[in-house]
Amino acid sequence: MELSEEEIQKEMDRRRPGQGLGTSSRQEKDRVEILSGLFEGKTTGTPISLMVRNEDVDSSPYEELKEVFRPGHADFTYQAKYGIRDYRGGGRASSRETVGRVAAGAIARKILAQEKISILAYTLELGEIRADQMDLDEVERNFLRCPAPQAALEMERKVEDVKLKGDTLGGIVEILVQGCPPGLGEPVFDKLEADLAKGLMSIGAIRGVEIGAGFRVARMLGSECNDPLGPNGFEKNDSGGILGGISNGEDILIRVAVKPIPSISMEQKTVDHSGKPVTVQIRGRHDISAIPRIHSVCEAMVAIVLVDHLLRQKAIERR
Amino acid sequence: MELSEEEIQKEMDRRRPGQGLGTSSRQEKDRVEILSGLFEGKTTGTPISLMVRNEDVDSSPYEELKEVFRPGHADFTYQAKYGIRDYRGGGRASSRETVGRVAAGAIARKILAQEKISILAYTLELGEIRADQMDLDEVERNFLRCPAPQAALEMERKVEDVKLKGDTLGGIVEILVQGCPPGLGEPVFDKLEADLAKGLMSIGAIRGVEIGAGFRVARMLGSECNDPLGPNGFEKNDSGGILGGISNGEDILIRVAVKPIPSISMEQKTVDHSGKPVTVQIRGRHDISAIPRIHSVCEAMVAIVLVDHLLRQKAIERR
Amino acid sequence: MELSEEEIQKEMDRRRPGQGLGTSSRQEKDRVEILSGLFEGKTTGTPISLMVRNEDVDSSPYEELKEVFRPGHADFTYQAKYGIRDYRGGGRASSRETVGRVAAGAIARKILAQEKISILAYTLELGEIRADQMDLDEVERNFLRCPAPQAALEMERKVEDVKLKGDTLGGIVEILVQGCPPGLGEPVFDKLEADLAKGLMSIGAIRGVEIGAGFRVARMLGSECNDPLGPNGFEKNDSGGILGGISNGEDILIRVAVKPIPSISMEQKTVDHSGKPVTVQIRGRHDISAIPRIHSVCEAMVAIVLVDHLLRQKAIERR
Amino acid sequence: MELSEEEIQKEMDRRRPGQGLGTSSRQEKDRVEILSGLFEGKTTGTPISLMVRNEDVDSSPYEELKEVFRPGHADFTYQAKYGIRDYRGGGRASSRETVGRVAAGAIARKILAQEKISILAYTLELGEIRADQMDLDEVERNFLRCPAPQAALEMERKVEDVKLKGDTLGGIVEILVQGCPPGLGEPVFDKLEADLAKGLMSIGAIRGVEIGAGFRVARMLGSECNDPLGPNGFEKNDSGGILGGISNGEDILIRVAVKPIPSISMEQKTVDHSGKPVTVQIRGRHDISAIPRIHSVCEAMVAIVLVDHLLRQKAIERR
Repeated sequence: MELSEEEIQKEMDRRRPGQGLGTSSRQEKDRVEILSGLFEGKTTGTPISLMVRNEDVDSSPYEELKEVFRPGHADFTYQAKYGIRDYRGGGRASSRETVGRVAAGAIARKILAQEKISILAYTLELGEIRADQMDLDEVERNFLRCPAPQAALEMERKVEDVKLKGDTLGGIVEILVQGCPPGLGEPVFDKLEADLAKGLMSIGAIRGVEIGAGFRVARMLGSECNDPLGPNGFEKNDSGGILGGISNGEDILIRVAVKPIPSISMEQKTVDHSGKPVTVQIRGRHDISAIPRIHSVCEAMVAIVLVDHLLRQKAIERR
Repeated sequence: MELSEEEIQKEMDRRRPGQGLGTSSRQEKDRVEILSGLFEGKTTGTPISLMVRNEDVDSSPYEELKEVFRPGHADFTYQAKYGIRDYRGGGRASSRETVGRVAAGAIARKILAQEKISILAYTLELGEIRADQMDLDEVERNFLRCPAPQAALEMERKVEDVKLKGDTLGGIVEILVQGCPPGLGEPVFDKLEADLAKGLMSIGAIRGVEIGAGFRVARMLGSECNDPLGPNGFEKNDSGGILGGISNGEDILIRVAVKPIPSISMEQKTVDHSGKPVTVQIRGRHDISAIPRIHSVCEAMVAIVLVDHLLRQKAIERR
Repeated sequence: MELSEEEIQKEMDRRRPGQGLGTSSRQEKDRVEILSGLFEGKTTGTPISLMVRNEDVDSSPYEELKEVFRPGHADFTYQAKYGIRDYRGGGRASSRETVGRVAAGAIARKILAQEKISILAYTLELGEIRADQMDLDEVERNFLRCPAPQAALEMERKVEDVKLKGDTLGGIVEILVQGCPPGLGEPVFDKLEADLAKGLMSIGAIRGVEIGAGFRVARMLGSECNDPLGPNGFEKNDSGGILGGISNGEDILIRVAVKPIPSISMEQKTVDHSGKPVTVQIRGRHDISAIPRIHSVCEAMVAIVLVDHLLRQKAIERR
Repeated sequence: MELSEEEIQKEMDRRRPGQGLGTSSRQEKDRVEILSGLFEGKTTGTPISLMVRNEDVDSSPYEELKEVFRPGHADFTYQAKYGIRDYRGGGRASSRETVGRVAAGAIARKILAQEKISILAYTLELGEIRADQMDLDEVERNFLRCPAPQAALEMERKVEDVKLKGDTLGGIVEILVQGCPPGLGEPVFDKLEADLAKGLMSIGAIRGVEIGAGFRVARMLGSECNDPLGPNGFEKNDSGGILGGISNGEDILIRVAVKPIPSISMEQKTVDHSGKPVTVQIRGRHDISAIPRIHSVCEAMVAIVLVDHLLRQKAIERR
């Protein structure tokens, strides 16, 4: 298929910080370069290798964190596992790592678009404020990518407020897949929701994943939870578009819990490499919430999982 | 290591239905047979193959469901994906499939026990009743494996009540891993929580997974969510024992949402293979809830994921 | 697709010993049982599990070999790797293990037959006697499955001769794939010849694999080795049907070197578990050569590799 | 462990052409850049990403080959598989691709060196001239990396001769692994020789692989082929250091058949994309033989396979 750096760049730019209230003003340029897999503007079947160089990086603020385990970060566990860690920005545990996911996801999304499958992530909840309306056209209209314009305003105010205190905010993101055909998913272990859950839980800030009614099923009766079938398909969608590990043709609905960014500017208790108690204060500008930057990462991971299952299904399709 | 059919059978028997109020009286004997991998009572390094035959199966109640898609079941999606389905009991989408997971999990748990790692699943919520106490010694003392004895009684009453109506119940199960060393988990894609989420979401009835504070993080500030470190380790455990995809040595805490069993005896609206609207009524005895049978399945999946990561970590351990 | 135990059994029976001069008279019944994956005579997409029980096994002749490393066998290496070994018949290193490959291969061959791809293995050389003719119709007509009837007779005489001495014979098997479409194979690491080589080298007795002109290329000039293309395809086939890791539509031609069966009845020098020099004499009836039993194993492995690549290619095929 | 670009570069330079009689004078600079995985000169457990840019590439000689299938090359099969191909130098089917293998192999070899495992590839045969002596110290002393100095001279003369005619030469390379401990290899499918065969057969020019006695086993009796064990280990090594798929502690010996480079400057018959017969003459400077450049590629692939198996063995090692 046709592919260009510009197309991928466009997805990268959506992810970029410094584009609105509440996200940091760090200027990462994030230029993607296609290293392989293209010839005269078309993919050739050769693996596509993408590179984004870290530029403009000043690691000096990290010097003083060299021997200190920042709370909520992976400093302690990387040290425990590998016996060495790149303290400048968290290394592989930094959210910078998601740049690669978004770039790869741009290609996956293009493949899905050819099959009329689209993916949209939006903010359902931020800082205890919940979207009270579901107008998807609003998503691109506000900085926090919230489908409820009034709630979006309140969220922005909350962000401002928390920013002054040097604290950070968690939230909930919903991901909506439209146009997915029935039949994707490979029981029993590679069920579609299992691979989606793995893909999303591999994103650093995510601490919970639910499909369809999700945790609400715990309080439902079977007679409420089952989606009846009618001549025009399923009559409601508490299954979230997946039954028995296989897509059923309805919209796929997933929600993820996003934890507050651990880099707060308040003083925190911790220990250093020798185990001695110290306090740590994280300098530099940081985002107040992984929302809404995490949206494009979630969309990318869902796209990658769907393309994988699409190809697996194509391989076994009856003629 | 030493291994016997009796050890595996013991885990199988914990899973067996008909052992208490609320679970069906179907009598599946579920005798496990070790087909390979053992010699003189010890494992040899050869893959261990286990077999449990389905016995005593009467597929006649399924005859009338042959052409009908049961709501909440995978009938529709299997038909859509494969163009054929084994209508007798749901085939691979039946919860019978979990027998194999429990059997394999018994071996995984034995390996973990040698490393002093233990896994316990218990009922946190059933039919809107929540455990209001956390006494792990109570778990083995009541049929519903609930750590709160008073809540357990109420749950049992709820089960009786719903049983009379022919309906079924959902709930929440918590899984606690104790003794896990720091260092398990392989960033960035095979993070420990990612593989745990996949393993658990691959169990049919599970619709949501959360680690540590889980969905609660959405309403936390960074200053609340971060776990401070002190000279004796982490001072609280909202991370649920995993930071940056790697175990941190604290207890691992996971919760899963369990949907109500879709086989209800009330009449339901659906369609048949030709798309014609019909009503369906499911006969035969069925469980009221996947809880508590699902506990041993959850324990098994967590055990299998941990053994995998334990071996991966052993491979790279510094000498 | 349709599938029955009988079809698989037919392939199993071709493999069975005791069917001609030179192969042992051990009577393994080798009844295959399909454990899963079939419904009303058709495959359902569920994994197909096959079982063949070892019957009629007398392990008493192995008792005296318990502490002794048989030369040419895997006794020493299994003990070194696992610290334990099942000395009764070699465990997983026994050629009995290939029963499973042949059974699985029968299904793979059926899939290939639907695509008009056929696989035939035959004896090119046995005990220094080489087939001097290439009449494929002869292959099923003689016990040693040799395409040259005169050579086949000589080979049989050689087998008789060596049998009297208690020794065994090696040989060369050629595998011919007809009808393979162009396009199978995934460069750079999963080239078709790479996967074929792995599949075949994983068979116990095989010590060398070559494709097309194989080791003969060492003595060729580029101008001799290159296959010219004409309007009707390739004008010769020294590439053996694979160019750059991808099938080119010509016949695929592979040859494998089969070592003599290490179980000879002559006295041999070796050591026991304590390292003490001992002599060992292997009792019981053993085959004189892995040929021709190994033919069906080779065919099975080639079939399995081709089906894998066929599915991979179907997944990426342009619409 | 410690790692630097210089170490990897050293291996790259051994591979470089233009370093002796018979190899082309193309000047590829091949500077390796480590993109990730290092911190202060040490590996961190993060995947190591290496990049070598193609520089100084003039694709104009390929313009006229745009619509023509070069005999012996993968032009036809890439076009058949992907419907598109990068005609400039063969794309992924070019031997340029092996640069990445050699770079990765340099790291694998360093890991093996820590375990005292060494790998050496040398020329056993070139243009029908066979090494008649096995003096490994000679290997680094002549351009063709042949252990027999007299044969090396003859080979060089043969290369000169064939060069004048515009033709190319095949040969045989032997790879010797010293110091490999017993226990590497995972039966039944991931036997050590199976993975070595796959790794080596995935190198473009290789058409055959044999272990130990290799194809010679076809003419051996069991009593000749079996390696007797004595108190000091195996008394000969026809098994080539691998028994039953597991290393036995002896030297591992592998030979590969290397086909003549298909880019000859003589006129050849072929067809173009429309199937029309044409003649093709390949311009530009090309190597006369893949030997000895292929040696470092072979060493790299063997090293990568051994590291993989070393880690797998470490994971299961008894404590």
